[in-house]
Amino acid sequence: MAPTKHPLDLISPAEISRAVEVLRAQYSDQKLRFKLVDIYDCPKAEVIPYLEAERLGRALPPAPPRRARVYFHLSDPYLLYKARVDVTAGKVETVTSLENIQGPVDFDEWTEVEHACNTHPDVLKEIELLKLPKGARIVNDPWAYGTDDSAERRRLFQCYVYIVLNDDPEANHYSLPAPFSPVFDAITKELLWIDHLPLGDGTEAETTRPWEPVNAVEYSANLLKDPFRTDLKPLQVQQPQGPSFEVDGRNVSWQKWKFNLGWTMREGPVLQNVTYDGRNTFYRLSFSEMTVPYGDPRTPYHRKQAFDLGDAGLGMMSNSLKLGCDCLGSIKYFDGYRTAADGNVVAMPNVVCMHEVDAGIGWKHTNFRTGTTSVVRNRQLVVQCTATVANYEYIFAFILDQAAAIHFELRATGIVSTMPIRKGTKVPWGTNVAPGVMAANHQHLFNIRVDPAIDGHDNTVIYEDHVPAGPEDEDPFGCAFKVAETTITKAGGYTLDVEKTRVYKIQNPSILNEVSGKPVAYKLHAMPSQMMIMKPNTFNAKRALFASKPIWVTKYQEDELYAAGEFTNQSRVDTGLGVWATRDDDVKNTDVVLWHSFGLTHVPRPEDFPVMPQEMMSISLKPSSFFTQNPSNDVPRSTQAINKSTLVESLCHKL
Amino acid sequence: MAPTKHPLDLISPAEISRAVEVLRAQYSDQKLRFKLVDIYDCPKAEVIPYLEAERLGRALPPAPPRRARVYFHLSDPYLLYKARVDVTAGKVETVTSLENIQGPVDFDEWTEVEHACNTHPDVLKEIELLKLPKGARIVNDPWAYGTDDSAERRRLFQCYVYIVLNDDPEANHYSLPAPFSPVFDAITKELLWIDHLPLGDGTEAETTRPWEPVNAVEYSANLLKDPFRTDLKPLQVQQPQGPSFEVDGRNVSWQKWKFNLGWTMREGPVLQNVTYDGRNTFYRLSFSEMTVPYGDPRTPYHRKQAFDLGDAGLGMMSNSLKLGCDCLGSIKYFDGYRTAADGNVVAMPNVVCMHEVDAGIGWKHTNFRTGTTSVVRNRQLVVQCTATVANYEYIFAFILDQAAAIHFELRATGIVSTMPIRKGTKVPWGTNVAPGVMAANHQHLFNIRVDPAIDGHDNTVIYEDHVPAGPEDEDPFGCAFKVAETTITKAGGYTLDVEKTRVYKIQNPSILNEVSGKPVAYKLHAMPSQMMIMKPNTFNAKRALFASKPIWVTKYQEDELYAAGEFTNQSRVDTGLGVWATRDDDVKNTDVVLWHSFGLTHVPRPEDFPVMPQEMMSISLKPSSFFTQNPSNDVPRSTQAINKSTLVESLCHKL
Repeated sequence: MAPTKHPLDLISPAEISRAVEVLRAQYSDQKLRFKLVDIYDCPKAEVIPYLEAERLGRALPPAPPRRARVYFHLSDPYLLYKARVDVTAGKVETVTSLENIQGPVDFDEWTEVEHACNTHPDVLKEIELLKLPKGARIVNDPWAYGTDDSAERRRLFQCYVYIVLNDDPEANHYSLPAPFSPVFDAITKELLWIDHLPLGDGTEAETTRPWEPVNAVEYSANLLKDPFRTDLKPLQVQQPQGPSFEVDGRNVSWQKWKFNLGWTMREGPVLQNVTYDGRNTFYRLSFSEMTVPYGDPRTPYHRKQAFDLGDAGLGMMSNSLKLGCDCLGSIKYFDGYRTAADGNVVAMPNVVCMHEVDAGIGWKHTNFRTGTTSVVRNRQLVVQCTATVANYEYIFAFILDQAAAIHFELRATGIVSTMPIRKGTKVPWGTNVAPGVMAANHQHLFNIRVDPAIDGHDNTVIYEDHVPAGPEDEDPFGCAFKVAETTITKAGGYTLDVEKTRVYKIQNPSILNEVSGKPVAYKLHAMPSQMMIMKPNTFNAKRALFASKPIWVTKYQEDELYAAGEFTNQSRVDTGLGVWATRDDDVKNTDVVLWHSFGLTHVPRPEDFPVMPQEMMSISLKPSSFFTQNPSNDVPRSTQAINKSTLVESLCHKL
Repeated sequence: MAPTKHPLDLISPAEISRAVEVLRAQYSDQKLRFKLVDIYDCPKAEVIPYLEAERLGRALPPAPPRRARVYFHLSDPYLLYKARVDVTAGKVETVTSLENIQGPVDFDEWTEVEHACNTHPDVLKEIELLKLPKGARIVNDPWAYGTDDSAERRRLFQCYVYIVLNDDPEANHYSLPAPFSPVFDAITKELLWIDHLPLGDGTEAETTRPWEPVNAVEYSANLLKDPFRTDLKPLQVQQPQGPSFEVDGRNVSWQKWKFNLGWTMREGPVLQNVTYDGRNTFYRLSFSEMTVPYGDPRTPYHRKQAFDLGDAGLGMMSNSLKLGCDCLGSIKYFDGYRTAADGNVVAMPNVVCMHEVDAGIGWKHTNFRTGTTSVVRNRQLVVQCTATVANYEYIFAFILDQAAAIHFELRATGIVSTMPIRKGTKVPWGTNVAPGVMAANHQHLFNIRVDPAIDGHDNTVIYEDHVPAGPEDEDPFGCAFKVAETTITKAGGYTLDVEKTRVYKIQNPSILNEVSGKPVAYKLHAMPSQMMIMKPNTFNAKRALFASKPIWVTKYQEDELYAAGEFTNQSRVDTGLGVWATRDDDVKNTDVVLWHSFGLTHVPRPEDFPVMPQEMMSISLKPSSFFTQNPSNDVPRSTQAINKSTLVESLCHKL
């Protein structure tokens, strides 16, 4: 077993086992059921001296203790506990019981509910009513139940049911949605009721009748009848001297960047202690939450609101990536670990991949007088994972480049959530993507958390608007424009403004750039998006205040990591930014955190079916007066000798 | 000489010579000076029958005549003429004299003005006053003069002057701007006056004094003293079976796409007659205009407003691309042609490159129950050019993908325009990017022209807003949202609305998608941007109405190609969209044209100097109910056997 090497490293199998052991010893008279055992981030005050000594090449102080975050149940399956365990000393630091809080979904319970739904006599009776063809079977995906006005306190799953007409395990069940949806109690496995899904254009639900046959729409190659394209020639990325990165445990070095690659069940990959050329830039960068509310008003769709990080976990749902399918070139993989309900550690191999990409030209100037060209290519480092959340896929990536920018790149792909609809019917709440299949309107709303350390930990967030010269300026021709700067002094939610190109910057006000005279900073290239459409008094909105505004600024407090709060499953209120951003905190020139919410309003199209071509979202953090010149000026110039491109015979019309 | 093979092909050298010859015969008593000889697009009515016969595999009708567009002067250098010449028949069709119109810049006059400025005695006197160090020299970039209230009718150049401290031709003169700027008459080569540039934070211009020495900031590798990075390992793209595209003259086929690759001096590459799987999609796609107005109120900067397409030409300024520097993989190059003032044809080799790119995952779904993954990679076809406009570079690309989307990708790089500033001074109108060097605030505003043919030529533009359910809807939980559709019935300028995710679509209202029931369409993924900041009564704004609104819809008329009009050099008014969009044309279900304006408000940062890391802008056209399912479902699945990625030794913590 390789020991943990760095204070910021993800939790190790040994540490998971230690936490489990310590809690079992503490509750030796009870049976523990584990929901989550993961790293509990070292408090900043404890670890920053260590990181600074590292950065400056000084003697290292003793490493701070390592801690685990544990969610678990004791004998009472209805009461969730949260513990913080010092796994270095082997002692429990805190335990809190969480009344009326539902923990995230875990694989074990999910599988039990799936099975209960597939085998329950009343469910089988409904299937009988469908009068399915011979050889047909059903599949169901249990969903976190969501929230509505009913003050529901049980732990429930809404099982969406689909039909498969054959026994091929790769059949696309999403293309044949069934017209009923059982609701199960996750603890007792009781069937509480069966929702009947509306099949017409109104709200009425109907009792289950014989299924109207339609053809499935397949995506798995073995099930497709039409020929594949034959004219796609191979394209390979070769790195004959290997990749340019170096890896020491979970510490990565690449093109003046250094960072520790963290990983949690909730967030997947996390970039920690990010420095460029030995300078502090960001303490912690992460995907913080996402929510996917559906815009069909009819029961049970109003409850359909996935919180794919909080309810389940980006890390937990990450694919085990396969060499050569997901990424080209020289690929390094990183593993993760999860804990089964019985406390055993389960390895999750290859949940994060890392590799370089050539993204075209980085910068270029041609001296037109001589024809001499200076070109530098845009080499990037990609740290990526793919999470499969039943039907949908989300590909999350951090991308670093040689001009000292960091990009968050998110691609939505996979399969839209489908509902049955009577043939010949249309609804304003979604699009028919196949005969008998409607995909409801929904939004994908994401939040990223940026914990900066711009040349130090006391930073200020400002925003800059680009505005015409004012009456105080001499502007005889009416053509001048300048920057109007606003300092964010209080925690809260803030807006973007495309018509002023409003740009948020994180500055270190104590350090001025010697060339521009401005404070060293990083700027956020945000993605202005429609915020959550659901009205503020809906549970959709109340559970996810992060999705009401694009920018949030809070004062750093330990363990405030998840935009909608620590526990989102069946939540009734936002315990994250909804609380932290309403504290009357001063956020100027202090340990500040910036959050950005963005997303897509998705009205599905037939082209999104059976699997959706990736829709990409990209956010960037770029240096702004952080350097005195282009930081990639020292990248070796692009030459054919190195790049070895091939000329396809030219068609030159000779004169 | 290869003959022109297709009615849409760019002009050929033989055709240029023919046009020159025909005009010389017509004006045999005068000396002609040629400004431009380029293709004049075949009128739609003449060429569409040919294109349709081609598309449907029928017998081809006779090819329509080929025509040239010519700008020229006769003996009077002040009077510009425009002619349309039928080069097939060898006859002049129309000639128009253009009073008070300035033609675009041409290389010959530019070089003459540069020389005049470098050698004029009064300019040399100013240089003397600078008391430059021994071995120093000056360089000047003549700029199109721009426009102001002075009712200037002469053809002028504003020469921006820079200092070089050595005789190396690759020295970065932009890093040492000189404090004066001569204005020359382009025809007489007279020095009309010398503008003195403001060096302080006010508007006052000062007489030239001894230059305050500062160091140059270099980018050319031979002039850099600091070491280059040594840890960047090669990354090569190999296509062992060659590229997947086929080229027949200027007709390209790739992954169900077919198009004719046009090219003009003005627009650079143009995609014409674009079909997917034999279906009409777009008749003509082009970058239509751009303007770069500067936001420093002080003379002469208020006149600084480049129209890099109209004043000069994307094609004209295109780099001759070099294998292995600009693009990786298997590269095909295309040439262009320009005409010298004397009518001779000048070949412009390799002004457009075409190659494939792997852009990551195209779509993916993992069947979490079995672990089976279906992955298709996102292979793209890139058609690209780089234009160098003195200091700046613009990289324009069309990108096609296998999900039947087309992307316009634009990267700004090169060198920001620099002004001298007294050391220790700051201004609100720009940023100090090096000692003694200020880069003024400016905007880069672009326009693309989309001439659609969505399954035919009668199309309608609509826009869709995503809005909450209305009072007419049953929405008991307040969570529903739907699409509110508006049809564009009249030509005009229109707005985006991020808070409603407003999406413009081009539909064929006569053809409904059999799955969704909606009209076949393509949607525009626009880039909401700050429009031109300069006030509507400024010449900046009056010359470029395209930059006042993000969306324009016009009824197709022949030769309405350039958003700000055909002649932008020293223009006083917009003769493009400013005219076409104010016609009271009905644009519903007809031959309609969609235009999109977007851009960047650029407050330079030190990191942009000496050469700016590319800033990317991307616009997409994506099918929406054009297909009954994902058009890339038939792309062969991604496998390691084909992709041949390399595993970097994994760090797997064994349990």
